[in-house]
Amino acid sequence: MKSYLDCIPCFFEQALRAGRIATDDEHALKQLMDELGKRLHQISLDSTPPETGRLIYRMVREITGNNDPYRELKLQSTQEALVLYPSLKRIIEESDDSLLTAIRIAIAGNVIDFGVSATFDIEIAIKEALESDFAICDYSAFKDKLVEAENILYVGDNAGETVFDRLLIEQMNKPVTYAVRENPVINDATIEDAVQAGIDKVATIVSSGTDAPGAVLNTCSPEFREMLDQSTFIIAKGQGNYEGLSNEDYLMFFLLKAKCQIIANDLGVTKGDIVLKGINTGT
Amino acid sequence: MKSYLDCIPCFFEQALRAGRIATDDEHALKQLMDELGKRLHQISLDSTPPETGRLIYRMVREITGNNDPYRELKLQSTQEALVLYPSLKRIIEESDDSLLTAIRIAIAGNVIDFGVSATFDIEIAIKEALESDFAICDYSAFKDKLVEAENILYVGDNAGETVFDRLLIEQMNKPVTYAVRENPVINDATIEDAVQAGIDKVATIVSSGTDAPGAVLNTCSPEFREMLDQSTFIIAKGQGNYEGLSNEDYLMFFLLKAKCQIIANDLGVTKGDIVLKGINTGT
Repeated sequence: MKSYLDCIPCFFEQALRAGRIATDDEHALKQLMDELGKRLHQISLDSTPPETGRLIYRMVREITGNNDPYRELKLQSTQEALVLYPSLKRIIEESDDSLLTAIRIAIAGNVIDFGVSATFDIEIAIKEALESDFAICDYSAFKDKLVEAENILYVGDNAGETVFDRLLIEQMNKPVTYAVRENPVINDATIEDAVQAGIDKVATIVSSGTDAPGAVLNTCSPEFREMLDQSTFIIAKGQGNYEGLSNEDYLMFFLLKAKCQIIANDLGVTKGDIVLKGINTGT
Repeated sequence: MKSYLDCIPCFFEQALRAGRIATDDEHALKQLMDELGKRLHQISLDSTPPETGRLIYRMVREITGNNDPYRELKLQSTQEALVLYPSLKRIIEESDDSLLTAIRIAIAGNVIDFGVSATFDIEIAIKEALESDFAICDYSAFKDKLVEAENILYVGDNAGETVFDRLLIEQMNKPVTYAVRENPVINDATIEDAVQAGIDKVATIVSSGTDAPGAVLNTCSPEFREMLDQSTFIIAKGQGNYEGLSNEDYLMFFLLKAKCQIIANDLGVTKGDIVLKGINTGT
């Protein structure tokens, strides 16, 4: 997905939100805003939002000297999600369609996103994801392709959300490779976060090589790109991965909650909607 | 009022909103964002938001070549307000406290502000202003000082809102000088807009000399500053005038609706609250 003009004020909001997690020095925060302003003319609307996110969070690290401002918040998110894990597992197992319920739960986990907002309520998100209609629901294609798939490449998104992904992985009964960010960026999951969520018990964890808050291909490692090329069933979680991968040619399913108006517009849905969207499925 | 870090993303939103009224050329709009970005390091947090507003709308004019993008919207707002005038006049005259009701109506008119949002509902604003409690209500001081005042300096805000101001002016029974912006900026009232609202029938209209969306003193004319110095009863309408004048030493009453979170914080009220705040009243 390209960037839109409306993304620009939001880039400054994101920088300010991340900057404030890293420091309360108002002078440093103004410097962060100014630096982003100076570089704005280099940011093309043809680039994807996570490419700019990568630039922003690099600036946050440089200016504040804090390499991983979200570390504590990430750990806390994972721990809170692990507390919910047994009850969510039970909901999935007791439901009429365990796979679809696991997909809903995985989407609910996508609300754990400090890039979009400073606050969220995971319990409400679970309730909504279990009860809401999908705005886009390519579940039939998802099931068909899943049956054919020998293995799955699952591109993760945020720490904490990883626990919800684990529940879906456990329902799919296929070998899964779970890709995370190479370096900390916002609250996106790294290998450490995925292990804390217990993903290592159900999948092979790999790095995508990127430090962007989304799988922006030209920032990913050749090994990860090779994996994408070889995969016949790819799940990409969350807005950042949608923004990075939605124009690519892979057979892929996006699981997300449309948390921002711009992405909702791009998908043709309403802000707040839940989405299971397949691309290049041949159907 | 100084600027806050949270004003910075909002400056970009304001520029985009105004730019879009002036043009639909995406290239020009990106250029507008880029220019604002480049100049951001020159914008001190010690400056007031309307000083930056002035810079932004100058850039909009320069880049889009449109000197008064809100002209049609302003005329439309005034005409719509004039349609409401007779019924509002009746509400004021039939109320137990006509002066206070006229103040409430004048505050309701403050919702006509394209600088804060692209949409608003004036009928709802009137209902709310008539029924809501004031978050700050220095009405007692307002009445006392009004009795003593020989004349009134009324610093207007937006076109259309001018009609609501006229209703308050008609209730005060004192000679009123009504100050407007020198040049078009957002939908702020100029002399032309004030005349269209019929302010010339109830007050002497003067220019404050500024092209900022608020009475920022160092951008106002010496004549207007002299007027402020000489006045013993000043009414300043709206957020822009509050931002420009709240730290000055004049005896002054601010009438506004707190439409943005930052101003609400500065005033110690909740966003959406209505405010009648006196400063330097000696009480």
